[in-house]
Amino acid sequence: MTRYEQLAAQIRQQIEDNIWQSGDRLPSLRDTVKQSGLSLMTVLQSYQLLESQGWITARPQSGYYVAHRNTGFAQVTASKGLHMSENVEISASIFNVLQACKDPNIIPFGSAFPDPSLFIQPKLSRALASAARHLAPQSSVINLPPGNEKLRRNIAQRYALQGIHVSPDDIVITAGAMESLSFSLQAVTEPGDWVVIESPAFYGALQAIERLRLKAIAIKTDPVTGICLDELEKVVEQYDIKACWLMSHCQNPLGGTMPDENKIRLVEILAAKQITLIEDDVYGELYNSPKAPMPVKGFDKSNSVLHCASFSKCLAPGFRVGWVAAGKHATKIQQLQMMSTVSASMPTQQAIADYLSQGGYDGHLRRLRLLLEQRRYRMLQAIQTHLPKDVKVNIPVGGYFLWLEFEPSFDANSLYHFALERGVSIAPGAMFSTSSQFNHAFRLNSSFQWNGQTEKGMQIIGEGCRKLRRK
Amino acid sequence: MTRYEQLAAQIRQQIEDNIWQSGDRLPSLRDTVKQSGLSLMTVLQSYQLLESQGWITARPQSGYYVAHRNTGFAQVTASKGLHMSENVEISASIFNVLQACKDPNIIPFGSAFPDPSLFIQPKLSRALASAARHLAPQSSVINLPPGNEKLRRNIAQRYALQGIHVSPDDIVITAGAMESLSFSLQAVTEPGDWVVIESPAFYGALQAIERLRLKAIAIKTDPVTGICLDELEKVVEQYDIKACWLMSHCQNPLGGTMPDENKIRLVEILAAKQITLIEDDVYGELYNSPKAPMPVKGFDKSNSVLHCASFSKCLAPGFRVGWVAAGKHATKIQQLQMMSTVSASMPTQQAIADYLSQGGYDGHLRRLRLLLEQRRYRMLQAIQTHLPKDVKVNIPVGGYFLWLEFEPSFDANSLYHFALERGVSIAPGAMFSTSSQFNHAFRLNSSFQWNGQTEKGMQIIGEGCRKLRRK
Repeated sequence: MTRYEQLAAQIRQQIEDNIWQSGDRLPSLRDTVKQSGLSLMTVLQSYQLLESQGWITARPQSGYYVAHRNTGFAQVTASKGLHMSENVEISASIFNVLQACKDPNIIPFGSAFPDPSLFIQPKLSRALASAARHLAPQSSVINLPPGNEKLRRNIAQRYALQGIHVSPDDIVITAGAMESLSFSLQAVTEPGDWVVIESPAFYGALQAIERLRLKAIAIKTDPVTGICLDELEKVVEQYDIKACWLMSHCQNPLGGTMPDENKIRLVEILAAKQITLIEDDVYGELYNSPKAPMPVKGFDKSNSVLHCASFSKCLAPGFRVGWVAAGKHATKIQQLQMMSTVSASMPTQQAIADYLSQGGYDGHLRRLRLLLEQRRYRMLQAIQTHLPKDVKVNIPVGGYFLWLEFEPSFDANSLYHFALERGVSIAPGAMFSTSSQFNHAFRLNSSFQWNGQTEKGMQIIGEGCRKLRRK
Repeated sequence: MTRYEQLAAQIRQQIEDNIWQSGDRLPSLRDTVKQSGLSLMTVLQSYQLLESQGWITARPQSGYYVAHRNTGFAQVTASKGLHMSENVEISASIFNVLQACKDPNIIPFGSAFPDPSLFIQPKLSRALASAARHLAPQSSVINLPPGNEKLRRNIAQRYALQGIHVSPDDIVITAGAMESLSFSLQAVTEPGDWVVIESPAFYGALQAIERLRLKAIAIKTDPVTGICLDELEKVVEQYDIKACWLMSHCQNPLGGTMPDENKIRLVEILAAKQITLIEDDVYGELYNSPKAPMPVKGFDKSNSVLHCASFSKCLAPGFRVGWVAAGKHATKIQQLQMMSTVSASMPTQQAIADYLSQGGYDGHLRRLRLLLEQRRYRMLQAIQTHLPKDVKVNIPVGGYFLWLEFEPSFDANSLYHFALERGVSIAPGAMFSTSSQFNHAFRLNSSFQWNGQTEKGMQIIGEGCRKLRRK
């Protein structure tokens, strides 16, 4: 990092730690020059970087102020208590929400997928073109589960750079993280078993539990720090839990990222009861903190965390290549795979392996994170402009989801229909729970390039909110 | 077809209909010239074609004889009666059999996959390279289920050429036929439901049934004509059957292909009870009859056949692209897909769509069928040379599997271990049933180029057979 980037990271950390809060005036350029010993130009560059990232705003003749991020909006509150479901059933309406996002005439704020235009990657296309031309016929057999060896080594190397030891033999390449998660859950449970999930949770978890006829306990989840460990501790005492499925970073839909101390405690709680953790880490590369967060897997001493991730949200949507660091469950997961999809697509596995070996992935990720951060900031500005002022918004430290709430009587399902009729999709809170406690909330995808269309979309959502609340 | 091809097809049909049997001397060239009115050259070309395909052999100064195909070996007998399983469990040993085929030092006669070198297709590679370079970023959203539109139209066109009406909207592109089958089964059943399968059956069916906690009735299946319809008729009267899963062509493992009259009767039996047919047709393109066989789907008037197929066995192994003509279940299957693998790999979908549009696929298929037929013939010769003379062999009219049996006390599992220790894999009969009635049988993959290695492999299997029978 250059010196101005270092200073920017430092100020940013101070803002994240609430040393400077929204609306606070930052030390003047001159004061910072004096305090830091850096040149005026360096300090100015830092401030400009932070401004471009949406952390601070300049007010003419007055100085730099912390932008309205966390407290410009009321903070979302944690969900309530436990929710137990002996029969998990999530309606087909989720499918309709997802399908709506395919229509090019609909503004896809409800989409789960990042803006595809973020992934225009000539280098990756060239890697695939080259793989297409040079794929040995035998590769269709050699790359059968656990999958392309070079790719497994590349992934193991990325773990190693974070200080996590994962053998390439313990990695199984899958047709995306959703498959990794589903196989992981299947590998460690039998129908009728209890499983712990978050409340609210990724609807994929709810549906996998439904399909595998498991019973779910949804534990309240903090919008900032993730699953409530005190609750979890009580639950594992009372129930014979077989697995816990959660997202450690940029939790979908709330956006929370677990602090390291929570991750350590989580591993201890689960290890004591020999409960497998299925760590859904698909947004792990999309952090906007100065340092990459450590997966829970990094604190796992008893090899009982299955770390599931993919390239779909950060490099190659549509390639359908993911993986699971499956440890002792690697063989069982390959067995499930051979009887389900047989293997991930082999040319795309090879292309990603070649791309990773060429270098440049980290540069791409840095640009991607910065873009996502800028776009999130633009969406927050539009929310401030168009939505009722008392909307509660959770602002995550990564990913591309914003979680919005109104008073408990607000009906986000009606908002969904109101907006969809006018060409805008949102993801209503009901998608993320088998209880009704999130019916007043909704999730927006902030990954899209801002323009007149998206501005209009937000205006429609604002109109809908006002109209529904007047009723 | 040219005139000599027509004549060859005609003679071949006569052989198949047992008008000429193995060892019979065919009419002389001169007699055929007289009888047919064709030129000597045309008749000679026909005979040479039949010889190259392994149907007939020339004996110097004697004439042409029907090759030892069906009756050179004793015919395999149909399996016995019904087998009911309330708990289907197929051991992890199947996985070991499949994994053994990945080892380049092992002769993969036990493999389920066709020889990869059959699929060296520069045109397909170019299509994928071009897709890689020109894939629009939006394609990762547009190609979400039901999948690439151009590909779905191409597939619908191929159905139309066979006189089967399937709308592109009823086709769902999947990550291979195994996924199509598994989703189809899931779409029409609930845990605890009864399902009819073949005996012996593709182990994938057994495992899907195990995973979905269904109950199976395995119906005896004729090695030539497929599932026994008299038995099926009794079973659907006695049980509340929800689905029937079978292979209409080149059944795995026996090799049987259902005659059209059986297909028509099958559809009637199932339609009367509103039972869904899940037609596994992955080997449908690998026929070696003069005409493409009609899928059962082609006789389906009540839209209750789900036709599952893929490009994995006939064009692009490793691409992981298959489909299901899902009719009224198309939406349900897309829902299952969105919660499982999300979609098939998008560049490979696009590549196959472009390849199919360019033309040349049928030429590739013709070459492939001819090669598979020649290779099967070579393997049959090696079986005659190296295996005990009383081995029973079923010779299918397509695909690339041979099914071999000895007396009921023969232990094919021991043969499997004997051969594997010596570097040869086979697929023991136990893989294909939850009963023990096929423990004396095994399946060989005849798709490989014949050479000293494969000859040696067959010699080892022969040794094993003799040694085990002496015990």
